[in-house]
Amino acid sequence: MLVSALLTSVGINFGLCVLFWTLYSSLRKQPANYDVYAPRLLSDGQSQGSSTFRLERLLPTPDWVRRAWQSSEEELLSSSGLDAVVFMRIITFSLRVITLAVVIGVFILLPVNFSGDQLHDVNFANLTSSSLDIFTISNVKDGSNRLWAHFCAVYLLTIFVCFLLYHEYKYVSSRRISYFLSSKPQPHQFTILVRSVPVSAGITVSDSVERFFKEYHPSTYLSHVVVRRTNKLRYLINDTKKLYKRLIHLQREPTASKSQPSSFFGLFGAKDDLVDHYEKKLEDLEENVRLVQSDVSMAGEEVRAAFVSFKSRYGAAAALHIQQADNPTQMVAEQAPEPHDVYWPLFPESFMRRWISQLIVIVACILLTALFLIPVVVVQGLTNLSQLEIWLPFLKSILNVAFVSQVVTGYLPSLILQLFLMMIPPIMKFLSSVQGHISISEIIKSACNKVLWFTIWNIYFANVLSGSVFSQIFIFLEPKNVPARLAVAVPAQASFFIAYVVTSGWTSTTLELFRLIPLICSLIRKCFSGNTNNELKDPAFPYHGVLPRVLFFGLLGITYFFLAPLILPFLLVYFCLAYTIYSNQFINVYAPLYETAGKFWPIVHNSMIFSLLLMHAIAVGIFTLKKLPLASSLVFPLPVITLIFNAYCRKRFLPIFVAYSAETLIKKDREDINDATTAEFFNKLVAAYQDPALLPMQYSSDSNRERTSLLSPV
Amino acid sequence: MLVSALLTSVGINFGLCVLFWTLYSSLRKQPANYDVYAPRLLSDGQSQGSSTFRLERLLPTPDWVRRAWQSSEEELLSSSGLDAVVFMRIITFSLRVITLAVVIGVFILLPVNFSGDQLHDVNFANLTSSSLDIFTISNVKDGSNRLWAHFCAVYLLTIFVCFLLYHEYKYVSSRRISYFLSSKPQPHQFTILVRSVPVSAGITVSDSVERFFKEYHPSTYLSHVVVRRTNKLRYLINDTKKLYKRLIHLQREPTASKSQPSSFFGLFGAKDDLVDHYEKKLEDLEENVRLVQSDVSMAGEEVRAAFVSFKSRYGAAAALHIQQADNPTQMVAEQAPEPHDVYWPLFPESFMRRWISQLIVIVACILLTALFLIPVVVVQGLTNLSQLEIWLPFLKSILNVAFVSQVVTGYLPSLILQLFLMMIPPIMKFLSSVQGHISISEIIKSACNKVLWFTIWNIYFANVLSGSVFSQIFIFLEPKNVPARLAVAVPAQASFFIAYVVTSGWTSTTLELFRLIPLICSLIRKCFSGNTNNELKDPAFPYHGVLPRVLFFGLLGITYFFLAPLILPFLLVYFCLAYTIYSNQFINVYAPLYETAGKFWPIVHNSMIFSLLLMHAIAVGIFTLKKLPLASSLVFPLPVITLIFNAYCRKRFLPIFVAYSAETLIKKDREDINDATTAEFFNKLVAAYQDPALLPMQYSSDSNRERTSLLSPV
Repeated sequence: MLVSALLTSVGINFGLCVLFWTLYSSLRKQPANYDVYAPRLLSDGQSQGSSTFRLERLLPTPDWVRRAWQSSEEELLSSSGLDAVVFMRIITFSLRVITLAVVIGVFILLPVNFSGDQLHDVNFANLTSSSLDIFTISNVKDGSNRLWAHFCAVYLLTIFVCFLLYHEYKYVSSRRISYFLSSKPQPHQFTILVRSVPVSAGITVSDSVERFFKEYHPSTYLSHVVVRRTNKLRYLINDTKKLYKRLIHLQREPTASKSQPSSFFGLFGAKDDLVDHYEKKLEDLEENVRLVQSDVSMAGEEVRAAFVSFKSRYGAAAALHIQQADNPTQMVAEQAPEPHDVYWPLFPESFMRRWISQLIVIVACILLTALFLIPVVVVQGLTNLSQLEIWLPFLKSILNVAFVSQVVTGYLPSLILQLFLMMIPPIMKFLSSVQGHISISEIIKSACNKVLWFTIWNIYFANVLSGSVFSQIFIFLEPKNVPARLAVAVPAQASFFIAYVVTSGWTSTTLELFRLIPLICSLIRKCFSGNTNNELKDPAFPYHGVLPRVLFFGLLGITYFFLAPLILPFLLVYFCLAYTIYSNQFINVYAPLYETAGKFWPIVHNSMIFSLLLMHAIAVGIFTLKKLPLASSLVFPLPVITLIFNAYCRKRFLPIFVAYSAETLIKKDREDINDATTAEFFNKLVAAYQDPALLPMQYSSDSNRERTSLLSPV
Repeated sequence: MLVSALLTSVGINFGLCVLFWTLYSSLRKQPANYDVYAPRLLSDGQSQGSSTFRLERLLPTPDWVRRAWQSSEEELLSSSGLDAVVFMRIITFSLRVITLAVVIGVFILLPVNFSGDQLHDVNFANLTSSSLDIFTISNVKDGSNRLWAHFCAVYLLTIFVCFLLYHEYKYVSSRRISYFLSSKPQPHQFTILVRSVPVSAGITVSDSVERFFKEYHPSTYLSHVVVRRTNKLRYLINDTKKLYKRLIHLQREPTASKSQPSSFFGLFGAKDDLVDHYEKKLEDLEENVRLVQSDVSMAGEEVRAAFVSFKSRYGAAAALHIQQADNPTQMVAEQAPEPHDVYWPLFPESFMRRWISQLIVIVACILLTALFLIPVVVVQGLTNLSQLEIWLPFLKSILNVAFVSQVVTGYLPSLILQLFLMMIPPIMKFLSSVQGHISISEIIKSACNKVLWFTIWNIYFANVLSGSVFSQIFIFLEPKNVPARLAVAVPAQASFFIAYVVTSGWTSTTLELFRLIPLICSLIRKCFSGNTNNELKDPAFPYHGVLPRVLFFGLLGITYFFLAPLILPFLLVYFCLAYTIYSNQFINVYAPLYETAGKFWPIVHNSMIFSLLLMHAIAVGIFTLKKLPLASSLVFPLPVITLIFNAYCRKRFLPIFVAYSAETLIKKDREDINDATTAEFFNKLVAAYQDPALLPMQYSSDSNRERTSLLSPV
């Protein structure tokens, strides 16, 4: 890829960013868009500004940027929970790393690379003087002592990153503990989920659970709720809800019946008849639902899993950590999620079923990875034009136009990749949900991991070592050749990844700020139905979409900083953008749906360690390639130290993210004893894990109330 | 290696076996040797047969063999504990596997191989018609359909082994639970060991432990014993013991003082003076010891570790499984070993120190492996004579003598290897003890693992892929070439491994029966001091020496059975020998020193799974080599299934070997409540984990008593 092509891409994306930015700065102030840009404030009941038109509303003002940068960690914690705090710390962490990388890379390594003259006397086939490669390490003379600068840079960054990682891990874990200590009593602290409950003939799951825990935990056992398979019921309820909405809408809009293009409704002339008809239908449906709910057998057969609540956190922990039944595959216990975090639809109760579904998911992921390489290969084809012209000769004429070719080689590839990548997070989320996690947060976490490794493999390695999956895999089946291969391939892709950062980083993030899709949806909603605040729900932050991207850019920064420092400024800009935008979105848009209390951090730690190891591997390869064997052998201690450091962190910090210590738990339990509200809390706890589908519903009466309220003079 | 050479080796070893066997059969009946061949019976007070000479005593009789085969599992359990039972099951398990292998290998594959004529028309360089290779798979024509017999054999054996493994694992784990349920209350069931106890200034370890557990486990905490570093004291006590023995010996033997060649003792003419002198010395020493013991500071400073006992097994389990302190590297808890199983000398208290020592041990093991390759290479040199003659030309003349050359190529290599291998178990045991295990059983178990993998690497791979360590490692750095490499190399070594089985298997085992070294020792002891039964201690079974060998032969059997079935009969003989001899030794010789309740089984399971996978890898290689690609690709499902099977077993059975379930623990606790002896047991428990070095000692008074008893007319 040539500089011009890269510049085109940068230009286009920069333009888009500015556009979105200004649009947001003005649109966000229109009360009509509050439901898109400030749903949180709406739901808090704030900023219900009068909708009278004022000019200065149209002028884009950057006040929100200041606000975003000024918001303190404590504010964030109180408004969006610990997960948001941890997420913002991930960005600041990356910012710190990249800042150091920029200082070293741009002010030391870049001049060194540029002043080298390898690429002038060695005239590679596919390089021209205007290629970006003169800024990369490839331009340093083989065996020249200047390479020691790169060597030192590698050591310096590794040490700095490890140092930061240690401190962040320590900080986050302490934060996690203090968060727990300061938290109010919550159902999930007292509850565990047991699966594959053994059932003998003639005994229901409920009985056998109760019998077991009354037998072995008489002092701490409080109550239990058996999980039921309520999918049918759930469908019924959804229908009812739909009907209800439609009814409300109908009652609100006098013109609704006319707007209905249905011949069926033609029978009813007036609107009221229609309303009556709907209300009868609704009542029937509700009657039906109530009937099903009342009848246990119809409400869905018992699943061999149950939420078991205890009288104390420590009691729950004891039951959780000590294997319960003699057969380790029975009575498998795990920490219960928060009640509203439980993922009811697919509930894999038995040990075997869950285990098999996991195996299946693994296979599915592998297949997906294999399939995804097709677009990647196409993208690779675009980046070098000559190949494209061979594929599609009829395009030659168009492609010879400078700008077109630049767009095609510079902007198109990363755009296409972008579009394909956008499909991955939802797919991975679905796969994780099939895998048998019981809570939405767990699903999101495992989706995060999947997307991350998918991105690393399919964007990084597939672009670097372009070729079929198998050829790639075989490369990794010969570990001792990997460094050499990487050393050749990685620097060559620098310019592509710069374009990728600009497209995927800058534009996607500002798009995230602008919230194009939600905006369009809300516009559509508005033109069809009037103000629909009552249905409005604050969106949850899509960790599985965002976090992997942030981490992937961290990986790019770390692996490229000593090869092609030119990428670093772009990354720096990205992280600044990300900080501003996400902190703004946390304030205005996203409401915490669940609280993992920082369980996302270990993912970050692992991916950073991986990035470091990858950098070391590349360094080994590069220094061998550059005929500086001493340096390449002196790099070897680095991965070893990194791995030992990682092993230490796993022992020192990871357990804190898995479970709370007896010390903490008992402290909390003691607090409750003196607390007056505890008794009432326990009363609530008994029913906390009731399947929402089994809760009674009251719509028709509401609709009646609604109706009367409408009929009565406002 | 030629058939003749192999036969020589077999002959020599067979001769040795017969010799040892007959010698044992006659010697074991001499009362003089009871302390060598039947120490257990002695210590039980049985078989104190009169020492009057009778002829039939000299005739070797095989009655003990019948006895060994007849001894039931229950007898073994009651006499030698569950570990012995599990060990014998390992042998019977291997016997079953090898029997099937023999049936398939010898009666189906061997004829197939022999009738093939690959090696006649293809005339390899280093093969002669009298080579054993005509019995191996190498002799089957490339691409011939007869290879499908081998293919089926591989599938059959894999399925059979997995089936057996599953049932054995199930049986052993059920045995383990029932053993626990039937056991009397024992200190280690109620006790945990906490390490790296946090100590703040001015607070002793003891205080902080007591404070912590009284704070957080008030209802279950019973008592604790802080570990002390008592090495100095231990030396003192040993000196005292030595002196005491010497004194006793002196009092017994009137001639002792003369036999003493010391000028110092010359001062005292008479024996009594000498005795008096010794007694005074002894008293002084004891006084010293008592003084040190009484003074806390001198008795050795407190180590940051303590044995904490609880009022119930479940209480102990709860404290064990729930992370105690907020910092996971503090108050690290683990199950306490049996009091007499504790390994006092090196007590790594702090988390860091233990962790670092583990890293060091890993490095040490790697170094040892690297160094050990030197003898292996020498052995390899011996096996092909031509190379040897190049190394040591002056030997040419001797080596040309048929018998010599046969001994050199046939017997010597495996003998040398044998001698070197004999040093490994003790070294590994030492390394494991440094590693920071707290109990002898743990040390032995980890030594087992080390020796096993050391053997597999250094005997199997080093002989198969003979070459430097690095060249070997690099082979494994290119996994996709491994099968091909193995397919070429493994069959070629068949005859060497037959010789190895014969030497290391047959002879070592019969030597184990004959107990050469102990016999010599006891003879020496006898000529210097008289009957020394009072010092006699039953030896413990050297699992770390024996178990890896048994498992390694299992590996040989599984990997070679379809390549060179000729090895199988030799293995079958070995396992029969092993069964007879070890069951006999358990009855007569070895007393259980500790009880892991079957914790050795997982090692067996893992090594068997590894053997299967190795066999599959070789199969893939062989079938590719033999130009039967379809077969080699059809083998692929096998390792996958095996790994899934293994994963399932890990989930289903392994936890049972790690900890007991709440169900079991609470059942046991309930039993105690009704038991009258419990109170008294708890009184004992408080002092159960006292460092033996700190217990009071009484020798001088004993010696006085001894003396008076001697003086008084018998």
